[in-house]
Amino acid sequence: MSGAVMRAAVIHRHGGPEEFRTELVPEPVAGPGQCLLDVTFAGLNYADLHCRRGEYGGQPLPAVLGADVVGRQRGDGRRVVALLRAGGGYAQVACAEDAHTVEVPAGVSGEQALALLEQGATAYGALTLLGRLRPGERVAVTAAAGGVGHLAVQLARELGAGRVVGLASTAAKREFVRSLGADAVLDPGDPHLVERLGSCGVDLFVDSVGGELLRAGLASLAPFGRLLSVGGRGGPEDSFAVDELADRSAGLLGFWLQHVLDDRALFADVAGRLFELAERKRLVARIDRVVPLDAVGAAHRALADRLTMGKVLIDLRGPS
Amino acid sequence: MSGAVMRAAVIHRHGGPEEFRTELVPEPVAGPGQCLLDVTFAGLNYADLHCRRGEYGGQPLPAVLGADVVGRQRGDGRRVVALLRAGGGYAQVACAEDAHTVEVPAGVSGEQALALLEQGATAYGALTLLGRLRPGERVAVTAAAGGVGHLAVQLARELGAGRVVGLASTAAKREFVRSLGADAVLDPGDPHLVERLGSCGVDLFVDSVGGELLRAGLASLAPFGRLLSVGGRGGPEDSFAVDELADRSAGLLGFWLQHVLDDRALFADVAGRLFELAERKRLVARIDRVVPLDAVGAAHRALADRLTMGKVLIDLRGPS
Repeated sequence: MSGAVMRAAVIHRHGGPEEFRTELVPEPVAGPGQCLLDVTFAGLNYADLHCRRGEYGGQPLPAVLGADVVGRQRGDGRRVVALLRAGGGYAQVACAEDAHTVEVPAGVSGEQALALLEQGATAYGALTLLGRLRPGERVAVTAAAGGVGHLAVQLARELGAGRVVGLASTAAKREFVRSLGADAVLDPGDPHLVERLGSCGVDLFVDSVGGELLRAGLASLAPFGRLLSVGGRGGPEDSFAVDELADRSAGLLGFWLQHVLDDRALFADVAGRLFELAERKRLVARIDRVVPLDAVGAAHRALADRLTMGKVLIDLRGPS
Repeated sequence: MSGAVMRAAVIHRHGGPEEFRTELVPEPVAGPGQCLLDVTFAGLNYADLHCRRGEYGGQPLPAVLGADVVGRQRGDGRRVVALLRAGGGYAQVACAEDAHTVEVPAGVSGEQALALLEQGATAYGALTLLGRLRPGERVAVTAAAGGVGHLAVQLARELGAGRVVGLASTAAKREFVRSLGADAVLDPGDPHLVERLGSCGVDLFVDSVGGELLRAGLASLAPFGRLLSVGGRGGPEDSFAVDELADRSAGLLGFWLQHVLDDRALFADVAGRLFELAERKRLVARIDRVVPLDAVGAAHRALADRLTMGKVLIDLRGPS
């Protein structure tokens, strides 16, 4: 294995999408509790944009970004999907933590497994572990055509929600959200948003936007309802006093996937549930596009410009 | 009924506990959806202190305070306990909303029914409707010897909590909390409180204090844990950002009993569950003292000075 090289999209400094260079670099070396994967597809995530700009502290340079991959595990050849907390996904070979690696069942394509895992585990973990969604409850989902949102709409329905309302900012996105089985779709810019949401009361408001939309969510909650943040802008304006929650007997919940990943059995359980739903076609991740490694910069640009609807995958099956 | 009078503790102006006068005043008149009760016992609540000082806006003067009573319903003679959102409890006859009146089962004493209902419905509603306590979860309760706290300790245990830790500020209170079935008791002034609470992680931190103690609660939470406020000091310092909750995948919940009272079926259900536990002696409200109507001022003083441990009742069975 020594001296083996692979193709990877490398950045030598933090900056814009033009920083990516496709290069031949040494393959990673797996340490204890880790494994190597021959990557077939790597995923793009919004967090990658922050990493590229150097906003998250992040990896030492030069760096290979990329937080999720699907491929064959070196050694046993099992088809696995892995979440890479330390990056390294935009490459032909990735080094993954065993604990963050899940085998893909035969009935699920590699592309689906990859497109589902990070955002699906976020949506499923948030709805069940923290949101404690009960059958019959009324759910609203912001950015419902987005990565977490479009899976949250489907999962809420699967978990027995009595009503699922999706918020999406364009007619095309709303049409997509409707196709996912949402009972109603709303424009977040609607000046009567709170009335429309609150006319029947929301029990669980699932938000990945923050700011004013989160405030609107509070105003729309039914008694004993909860705001469930699965990652918004974050910031001091997204603060709530106990008193204003008590005025509605309401809750504010903040979910972070890391706490699922920290618990190996829990992560395996969540992933298993997602793949089981995917096998039965009850949960389908939308894939916006599949691009070659050379096009990762352009794909970052499209992601930043909010031109994508669904997961962007990098195809790494090409000849090395 | 016209011209009938009753004894009541009346205040003619807002102020200290010396403002109470035992007087003969006209009996109240029941409007639509209301009933009259011949009161046997009336309860004291902390909120009464605020009402007496005129801090809650509150009733026009002269006023009869008192937010909960037990007695016989005029007409059918049923033994009922009632929560009086508009006051009027410190009197031989009280006017109650039918929707906020619950029949007391034969196996429960009037004193217990009265001492249980307001604080027990708060504890039970908060733990189940908003806290969504699941069997096996680890619960901490602040002011665990207090009105809501000592019932929350017992109810958490009944609801299957895996571990219940009670916080209480004196050795006598801690001994009492231990007698309720708490697995451990802690002094909220302990400089190592967070470590002691967090060593095994708290899933549901039930708080009626606020301020620094609520902050300590957040630091002690296990992933997917929740802070559950059942009424603290309230104020701008009791604010939390979504981001700091997400750092722990945690929740902040604010409960107000009014939302149970607003739903007649829900209130009846909660009261029924409390009385069922009381009948089986699985839930016992502590009664600190029973005083005559003339002693309500002294009882207010004791309550304000935190000299009571358990409910203070006014005995109204004396001759009119």
